Amino acid sequence: MKGRVVNLDQAFGQFTEHWRPRIAGAVNDYVVKIVKFQGEFVWHKHDDTDELFLVHKGRMIIRFRDRDVHLSAGELFIIPRGVEHITIAEEECEALLFEPGGTRNTGDVEDADKTATVEPDLVGP
Amino acid sequence: MKGRVVNLDQAFGQFTEHWRPRIAGAVNDYVVKIVKFQGEFVWHKHDDTDELFLVHKGRMIIRFRDRDVHLSAGELFIIPRGVEHITIAEEECEALLFEPGGTRNTGDVEDADKTATVEPDLVGP
Repeated sequence: MKGRVVNLDQAFGQFTEHWRPRIAGAVNDYVVKIVKFQGEFVWHKHDDTDELFLVHKGRMIIRFRDRDVHLSAGELFIIPRGVEHITIAEEECEALLFEPGGTRNTGDVEDADKTATVEPDLVGP
Repeated sequence: MKGRVVNLDQAFGQFTEHWRPRIAGAVNDYVVKIVKFQGEFVWHKHDDTDELFLVHKGRMIIRFRDRDVHLSAGELFIIPRGVEHITIAEEECEALLFEPGGTRNTGDVEDADKTATVEPDLVGP
C-alpha cells in the first residue's frame, strides 16, 4: 500500500459495510484502517495495545464503564490498552484507526457478527 | 496524552511556527505529530521507518528523486523507509504525521534551521 495516494473520501466510497475495517496503508508493522459503523459495537478491550480513532465524517461515542467520550469529524482520541470500551454511532460514522497490524477489532471478545476475521486492503483506483 | 479528545482545528490553532512538529498523542511507542509548514524542507530519508503524512489543510508535495506526489486535504501518503524525499508547500500546509516516537524530522540530515530537537506535547485546552 506504500507509494500510493489515499484520498479518504474516495476510500470510504469504496465500501458500504459497517464494522468491517479496510486497510488503507501500513507504517512499518502498524496499519491505518478505515471503518464505517452505525449502532453499538460490543464491549471489549485490547490488552496489548492502545488504539487511535480519528473521525472522518459524522459523530461517535466511545463509551467507557465510567464515562462517554464524544467525537466529531476532525477529532481524535486514543483508547488506552486494557480499558473496556464500546463504540457507538447514532448515524453512520466514518473513522480512521491507527494500531498495530493484526489487532482484532473486538479485542478480547469473539462476536459472530462484529469480529472482522479478514481486513481486506483497499483496492486502489 | 491519552484520555483526551484532540480537536485538530483547535490543536493547529495553538501554534504558528513552521517545521516544528507537536506531539498530539501516542499509540504505544508511536506518535501522532501535527506540523505546519511552508516552503521547502531539506532532502532527507529515514533509514529505519516509514512515515505517514495526512494533510489536514492546504496542499503539499512530497518530492522524490524521480517523481512528485501531490497531496490535498484529506489525502494520505506513506513514505517508505530509506527513500530520499523533500516536503514542499507553496502556501501554508497543516499535516498530521504518524511514525515511531523519536523519529527525527530531518532523518539522516542535520539542519540548523529545520531539525526539530524538541517536539513539545500539545498543551491541552
